[in-house]
Amino acid sequence: MIVMYSNILKKIKPSREEEEELKRISREIIKEIREIAKNIDSRIKVELLGSCSRNTWLRYEKDIDIFLIFPQEYPKDKLEKIVERIGAKVLKNLQKKYAEHPYVKGEYKGYEVEIVPCYACKSAENIISAVDRTPFHNEFVKRNISGKEDEVRLLKQFLKGISCYGAEAKVEGFSGYLCELLVIKYGSFENVLKNASKWKFGEVIQLDEKKLRKKFSSALIFIDPVDKNRNVASALSEEKLALFIYASKQFLKQRKETFFFPKERKISKKEVLIKFKERRTELIAIIFSKPDVVDDVLYPQLKKFIKNIKKVLKEKEFFVEGIFFSVEKEKVAVFIELRSIEIPQAKLHFGPFVNSSHESNFLNKYKNNAMKLTEPFIIGKRWAIVLKRKYNNAVSFLKEFLKGEEGIPKHIKRELRKGFKIKFNEHAFIEEFIGEIANYFDPRFPWEY
Amino acid sequence: MIVMYSNILKKIKPSREEEEELKRISREIIKEIREIAKNIDSRIKVELLGSCSRNTWLRYEKDIDIFLIFPQEYPKDKLEKIVERIGAKVLKNLQKKYAEHPYVKGEYKGYEVEIVPCYACKSAENIISAVDRTPFHNEFVKRNISGKEDEVRLLKQFLKGISCYGAEAKVEGFSGYLCELLVIKYGSFENVLKNASKWKFGEVIQLDEKKLRKKFSSALIFIDPVDKNRNVASALSEEKLALFIYASKQFLKQRKETFFFPKERKISKKEVLIKFKERRTELIAIIFSKPDVVDDVLYPQLKKFIKNIKKVLKEKEFFVEGIFFSVEKEKVAVFIELRSIEIPQAKLHFGPFVNSSHESNFLNKYKNNAMKLTEPFIIGKRWAIVLKRKYNNAVSFLKEFLKGEEGIPKHIKRELRKGFKIKFNEHAFIEEFIGEIANYFDPRFPWEY
Repeated sequence: MIVMYSNILKKIKPSREEEEELKRISREIIKEIREIAKNIDSRIKVELLGSCSRNTWLRYEKDIDIFLIFPQEYPKDKLEKIVERIGAKVLKNLQKKYAEHPYVKGEYKGYEVEIVPCYACKSAENIISAVDRTPFHNEFVKRNISGKEDEVRLLKQFLKGISCYGAEAKVEGFSGYLCELLVIKYGSFENVLKNASKWKFGEVIQLDEKKLRKKFSSALIFIDPVDKNRNVASALSEEKLALFIYASKQFLKQRKETFFFPKERKISKKEVLIKFKERRTELIAIIFSKPDVVDDVLYPQLKKFIKNIKKVLKEKEFFVEGIFFSVEKEKVAVFIELRSIEIPQAKLHFGPFVNSSHESNFLNKYKNNAMKLTEPFIIGKRWAIVLKRKYNNAVSFLKEFLKGEEGIPKHIKRELRKGFKIKFNEHAFIEEFIGEIANYFDPRFPWEY
Repeated sequence: MIVMYSNILKKIKPSREEEEELKRISREIIKEIREIAKNIDSRIKVELLGSCSRNTWLRYEKDIDIFLIFPQEYPKDKLEKIVERIGAKVLKNLQKKYAEHPYVKGEYKGYEVEIVPCYACKSAENIISAVDRTPFHNEFVKRNISGKEDEVRLLKQFLKGISCYGAEAKVEGFSGYLCELLVIKYGSFENVLKNASKWKFGEVIQLDEKKLRKKFSSALIFIDPVDKNRNVASALSEEKLALFIYASKQFLKQRKETFFFPKERKISKKEVLIKFKERRTELIAIIFSKPDVVDDVLYPQLKKFIKNIKKVLKEKEFFVEGIFFSVEKEKVAVFIELRSIEIPQAKLHFGPFVNSSHESNFLNKYKNNAMKLTEPFIIGKRWAIVLKRKYNNAVSFLKEFLKGEEGIPKHIKRELRKGFKIKFNEHAFIEEFIGEIANYFDPRFPWEY
């Protein structure tokens, strides 16, 4: 079935009514906030920013982003207090959130609204915190996107379909602003894909051809038109870029709707188990409760955690074939594929050079030592001895490691302290996580599900 | 039991009668050979060289070394022919041997005799082949050893007792000449050991203190007093040096006769098996007939062979914990201790970068491929795929390797072509080789047997 963009847009573009309602609600809340702000300080500007002001939002992500723009003499804590005060007056279910500085989030007549404080700056190159750039981004996009809003929507949905949409730590993909810039640069969704099909890693894209001031070492470099020293694509990982490039090429060949709307993958535990058994490796799962922190905190900690697990297992000479994690509603699991869970008891241990000053220490140490499997002997010019390993079973080792202090990020450690489970081989194939397990043992591209 | 050197000497020093007989027999054969040589060319000198002319031989190694010293205008092949002709006339059971140039070996009145041709040279620093140095060595030792012959004998026997006597490839230890020089340098057997106790690796020893012309990188450097550019200890391995240093220190503490005459090691197959099982590793033995070549050819080939086996197993990702060989009367066995004989079927294989020119080759290659365990997927910026290993069992792999052409030294290959056996784990514990197997799994110093 060849894709029709109009069919895609029917599903993702807000209807005239939805658009009008969002605009109306936006105007109402802006008005309310401006009233309050005026009474605090008439210099505080209140602006509707983000995709909803640029007409590039998708119908199912209709959140309203309102910025309070402060004069620079305001101290940070003052900003915070004012935003909280205003939020409390206009929003329901108010939540305080933390980015580079705090902002508030809540509900307004059924819409999700964020109120973000920032400073008024002369240019995007002279900002105080990252969020101060947003008004400049908004202005730039609004000035250049007109008539191409639907192209942006197609690109966003395409990226969603291949799990590459969003610059947050969980995804490491393309931000909404990057999508808008790509459409501005190449003119249409199709042209973005055609160009992406030819990208190399480290590709540099600019809107004007002025010479760059700075060198970047990211997977993709898109010079921010409002700040030449910034790479808009800095959060994009190599893997997500690679996936987008390959998906672009495949889509241009196949033109299937599944690129935008992948099917749910249907794979049974039994099928994944067959795949696993063919490999003749072993699998360990560590299962614990999901820490109650935002994804932008959780995902970097999980990445750090599995990197450390891999490192410590390697130090103990376990051979890690692969490691990955899966986050479900209430549980997190880390999966470790090993060459084998058990390794030999014996380990050849080298000591000092024969006749060096450390020789007698070495020989005395192993005179009566419960860990030795041989007497000391000589290999080449060194002393050597075969010792019993402290850990020759990865499960036993991990149990101790997970109870320890080192190498476990804070929020994960807190959950592990409450308890965890270790399961292995068939028992590690837990129904709840079977999606990620299948992705590992039988990886497929989302459009091929 | 504290050692008495007189007791040791009783066992190793020839008696007055033995000494006189050897001298008499030597004089007789020298006389016979001189008669013949005179008729060929009166300039050919016939000399008795070696330990028996220096009075440093051990009673059980009473071989007679006779050198024919030729004028330098003689071509090599002429030397060879003359030595063969003379050998044929005076010796029984004549054998031709090959060093840098050929020599002959045979029997004379119950004594083993070697007749070696060499060139008359002005000095040991201007020689044509290594053997031309021997007359200079002989002269030097004879001039300096007088009265210390028994000290040399003690040192030789001590080195024998700890398996460090002999510069040949099988031993990589101390030559007789090196023993003599050490006694000349330090004055007595005990003083050699006392000094050796303080040696470091790379120790340089000279008889006169003239500045060296050349740098050496051997384990031990003893500058040849007849040729400053030569290290007499160049064949000594680090391991044998280390063993000698440690044995010297231990002997000076313990003073036991077992350093000179180690007991036969008594260890049963059962005891060695217990040691092996504690390690939780696996063992493979490759058994084949002993190639009919001299040790100086066989041992370097065996060393090369096990080095190559280790290398190819490592390339196939088998984890070699250790490898050694054992040479018995008619059989040779190579033993390989592995972390495990079987490794996973699956192997993660990395392909080209996504969107590189090799991408389509890679993807086409694995479109329909019996070796794949997954479809191609992306890791970072590269393509990856999990493939079946060609070999996931070390025994199956070795069977093919041993039948192949690469990495197997000539004389070993010839025997392997006739057939070989592979045994593993308990079955590899073959009674015939139990000595070397015990040395590996339960290493002891010879004086501790």
